[in-house]
Amino acid sequence: MGIKRKKVSVIGGGFTGATTAFIIAQKELADVVLVDIPQMEDPTKGKALDMQESTPVFGVDANITGTSNYKDTADSDLVIITAGIARKPGMSRDDLVNTNSKIMKDVTRNVVENSPNCTIIVLTNPADAMTYTVYKESGLPKNRVIGQSGVLDTARFRTFVAQELNLSVKDITGFVLGGHGDDMVPLIRYSYAGGVPLETLIPKDRIDAIVERTRKAGGEIVSLLGNGSAYYAPAASLAEMAEAILKDRRRILPAIAYLEGEYGYNDLYLGVPTILGGNGLEHIIELELTADEKAALDKSVESVRSVMAAL
Amino acid sequence: MGIKRKKVSVIGGGFTGATTAFIIAQKELADVVLVDIPQMEDPTKGKALDMQESTPVFGVDANITGTSNYKDTADSDLVIITAGIARKPGMSRDDLVNTNSKIMKDVTRNVVENSPNCTIIVLTNPADAMTYTVYKESGLPKNRVIGQSGVLDTARFRTFVAQELNLSVKDITGFVLGGHGDDMVPLIRYSYAGGVPLETLIPKDRIDAIVERTRKAGGEIVSLLGNGSAYYAPAASLAEMAEAILKDRRRILPAIAYLEGEYGYNDLYLGVPTILGGNGLEHIIELELTADEKAALDKSVESVRSVMAAL
Amino acid sequence: MGIKRKKVSVIGGGFTGATTAFIIAQKELADVVLVDIPQMEDPTKGKALDMQESTPVFGVDANITGTSNYKDTADSDLVIITAGIARKPGMSRDDLVNTNSKIMKDVTRNVVENSPNCTIIVLTNPADAMTYTVYKESGLPKNRVIGQSGVLDTARFRTFVAQELNLSVKDITGFVLGGHGDDMVPLIRYSYAGGVPLETLIPKDRIDAIVERTRKAGGEIVSLLGNGSAYYAPAASLAEMAEAILKDRRRILPAIAYLEGEYGYNDLYLGVPTILGGNGLEHIIELELTADEKAALDKSVESVRSVMAAL
Amino acid sequence: MGIKRKKVSVIGGGFTGATTAFIIAQKELADVVLVDIPQMEDPTKGKALDMQESTPVFGVDANITGTSNYKDTADSDLVIITAGIARKPGMSRDDLVNTNSKIMKDVTRNVVENSPNCTIIVLTNPADAMTYTVYKESGLPKNRVIGQSGVLDTARFRTFVAQELNLSVKDITGFVLGGHGDDMVPLIRYSYAGGVPLETLIPKDRIDAIVERTRKAGGEIVSLLGNGSAYYAPAASLAEMAEAILKDRRRILPAIAYLEGEYGYNDLYLGVPTILGGNGLEHIIELELTADEKAALDKSVESVRSVMAAL
Repeated sequence: MGIKRKKVSVIGGGFTGATTAFIIAQKELADVVLVDIPQMEDPTKGKALDMQESTPVFGVDANITGTSNYKDTADSDLVIITAGIARKPGMSRDDLVNTNSKIMKDVTRNVVENSPNCTIIVLTNPADAMTYTVYKESGLPKNRVIGQSGVLDTARFRTFVAQELNLSVKDITGFVLGGHGDDMVPLIRYSYAGGVPLETLIPKDRIDAIVERTRKAGGEIVSLLGNGSAYYAPAASLAEMAEAILKDRRRILPAIAYLEGEYGYNDLYLGVPTILGGNGLEHIIELELTADEKAALDKSVESVRSVMAAL
Repeated sequence: MGIKRKKVSVIGGGFTGATTAFIIAQKELADVVLVDIPQMEDPTKGKALDMQESTPVFGVDANITGTSNYKDTADSDLVIITAGIARKPGMSRDDLVNTNSKIMKDVTRNVVENSPNCTIIVLTNPADAMTYTVYKESGLPKNRVIGQSGVLDTARFRTFVAQELNLSVKDITGFVLGGHGDDMVPLIRYSYAGGVPLETLIPKDRIDAIVERTRKAGGEIVSLLGNGSAYYAPAASLAEMAEAILKDRRRILPAIAYLEGEYGYNDLYLGVPTILGGNGLEHIIELELTADEKAALDKSVESVRSVMAAL
Repeated sequence: MGIKRKKVSVIGGGFTGATTAFIIAQKELADVVLVDIPQMEDPTKGKALDMQESTPVFGVDANITGTSNYKDTADSDLVIITAGIARKPGMSRDDLVNTNSKIMKDVTRNVVENSPNCTIIVLTNPADAMTYTVYKESGLPKNRVIGQSGVLDTARFRTFVAQELNLSVKDITGFVLGGHGDDMVPLIRYSYAGGVPLETLIPKDRIDAIVERTRKAGGEIVSLLGNGSAYYAPAASLAEMAEAILKDRRRILPAIAYLEGEYGYNDLYLGVPTILGGNGLEHIIELELTADEKAALDKSVESVRSVMAAL
Repeated sequence: MGIKRKKVSVIGGGFTGATTAFIIAQKELADVVLVDIPQMEDPTKGKALDMQESTPVFGVDANITGTSNYKDTADSDLVIITAGIARKPGMSRDDLVNTNSKIMKDVTRNVVENSPNCTIIVLTNPADAMTYTVYKESGLPKNRVIGQSGVLDTARFRTFVAQELNLSVKDITGFVLGGHGDDMVPLIRYSYAGGVPLETLIPKDRIDAIVERTRKAGGEIVSLLGNGSAYYAPAASLAEMAEAILKDRRRILPAIAYLEGEYGYNDLYLGVPTILGGNGLEHIIELELTADEKAALDKSVESVRSVMAAL
């Protein structure tokens, strides 16, 4: 009957999953279970132990466990899915979708069996389709299955704007709809520095360049790293969504949500502005779009649907 | 003449260096320059950019830059050296020492040329010998060149004790002297839970097991990971030392310090309790040792000296 | 079924109660209800509103409400009692005890009626006797009713030691048993700087002076203020205990606990080292005392019992 | 030559000044000197000591000193002026202005004599006129003398909006120009929830009611308290401005700035959007105003000028 710490399971012990676990522990949001496949059990245990050994230095109390056994995830309040493969050179998109879709189904069955009342956040790419897959497989209500894309896209956009204007990142906001990366639909008229519309502060060609860089930001990191992809900002974004839910903050954050008529779409997971709180995705905010914006969103949806067709 | 943020350069863009940079930025301790060799410039830039893109999510203002050009480190307040190779199977210890020693000399020349008034913290293994090398090469006063080992060793010890007693890590303290890992000399009589000596709370055989596990803790992570070594707790430890200095906290932390007669040793870098503050290593705390402790420390010193003989 | 924020009620809207509410909100530990008597309802609402208006600046989400209606405290996880009068010039101690005892009983009935499963922390002076009164009136199990004194006493002791040695407060620990202030029994042999026993770092006469100053530290503030008593450090101490419980940290903290044989005393609330976690006071740590320490503790107990005799 | 902590002096040891000092210390932004008149020296020392005694509990290192001697403020990086009297019933506004103006001049001479390179933030009411007085008396460049009003006004506005929409305060922004409270000119079209203009989320009559409540928010607290005025949110607002400067964040925050042609006004201190960083007020952001907004701002300016006429 006493007070217990919350519990988050992170599925996928790669760089993004591990870094997400690390940030959640640093922020003392919950105990964390990091899960990977049996063949990776030892390395996952190793990462978890290494993180655990940092907690005395940070002065935080959070248990971090590595495992390949889903029983260890039992009664999680929140589950974050980062598992899946990255697209390799020569791999078709359909192959990626199908492989990750199978992984999602398998992961979801194991997650839900052990935590039937959890909320799930999906990162795995292509996130719209994978979140849909998890939703269908989970049997959970739609507010309990959410995908990540917009927090990361806007974080990158905000970074580039802050650098452009030499200003604190705290006062820059961005706004995106639609798919992740290439497919994102930025709403510049809803993007500000200190509340002042960016359009009045930055010339149009520079904004266009920043939007373009944001679209390609994942690829920019991949190119620089040479071997691997971004994980710091993705992990921070997942932790932000987790915090909104675990602390019942009712934050307005972009997320991949299941649409039933919103924005004119149905039976589709798509990036939209949402309210995240103790019940997961508590509300979708619907905005009036201009004809151009709606057309861009339609195109984004088309892209999402074509990916889903591969499922 | 206005107020400027502090500047920290982290030499070595591997996992430990990158994670150290990340934690320093998250804590808004300073702007961070992450430096690696020219061949690794792009990946280093990629990591720095990925971290930078997480700052809007954390709401912190810190510039994180990746580079291979030491000019970018100019006027650093603090430099943390993580560069160097890890010992590979079949490599002799002397080869390790010689290779890393050359790297230390090269790094140090570049660092000091650009930041003649900085403080340097050395992580590279074997840390006692490498800190000595950096000290000699740098021409800096002894309070400005410090090595890391004890913060990490005690963090691991504290983790294991907290797990043993099922208690908050905040109330567990540990105390070590001498070399890192195998060579460490734990002073259990100075180790407590909530101020209560551990010896009165944990049976001797369990303490011995915890000490032994602490000695081998680096190896435990290496074994689990299969490919690579610990970086979360080492990075957290470096950030803790950095914070003590950057915030002029005058914290009592174990560190590898240059001894001139303290504990009966001369012209040697060894792990001892120190006071870290705005002037770097501001003071060495000398303790009365029992005969057994002194004997163990002598043995540890011998081990350090034998490594240094390879220089 | 979703995640809800925790709820803390603070009874007594004076400086200590209000500052405690403020710190708990700043740390985002819980929503806070600040309760005072009907005549003080408006000022209490005013303080709560003022605090609420600071939350956007801090970026924290916590509702802070002022009220005189205990129904607003319903289902609190934790209740902190700071209500009661301060001893005025010319007032006998028995009068103080009797007045505050009546207040405790009234408060406790109201608290328990609305939050039958809460944990209660009592600050009201004399804290040992008042915690006893709350315990008896509440019908709650002993682990759910706790008094504050030692966290504050050791915080003051640590402050004076840190100033004496010019060191970070983070590395100084203190240890007290027994009653608050004058009646406290400091265990200097369990007090350290960076794990090093204070006795080896500070001359005995200076330690004695620091202990004496700690004993009288409440009075020192009263004398300086001229009109009123300390509230910043008391509030911080209450928030620390609250955090240990709300985050289920299992911290070792001194607290006023109900003794049933521990340290040789029965049916008495006394300051002892405890483990605070999600179940409230989860354990009392018993230490071997020297004859001198035991004698001092006996005297402290005598003092507590003589206060309780007035009940 | 080592690293030293920053130093902030807070002039005026009343509730707002003391709470500001407390928050700055809690956030470890700087050492703090709290200054009041000689007659209040002991209570000021008492408050500072009480705060100091909370630092071990928070685990922060910051010296907090109470004094009436301006020599103790020497070499402050930042000085925050909260000194002055509150308007009492029956007191004419001119009397208030003249009394506080004399206090400002006296304080400023003492401040600048001891910290000739500091930045000054003024809170004392009427803040526009008092900031002007401090500027003229100080001889400091205009970027070094700033007044507080908009951070507090927008904090209150954001609080009411967050309550109206049941949303996190983190995602609500507000925007004001002009004088404090009654004279403020809210720019609702630059106020958002999650980037979405408030006008599309809240009916006009409710927005009007929230604006009106914000205008009167200081008075609302005064009415509720019965005896005294708000200090938690004002102190948090001062600390926010202090942090932007001390950490060289270049944040966009509303502040009372010296205008030389901006917005069409000259030789006047007025609330406008600014960039606060290491050089104090680094930039004024000029916005196109609608005719209505400009008219409202003219009226606000008239009100400020009529107060200044009393100087």
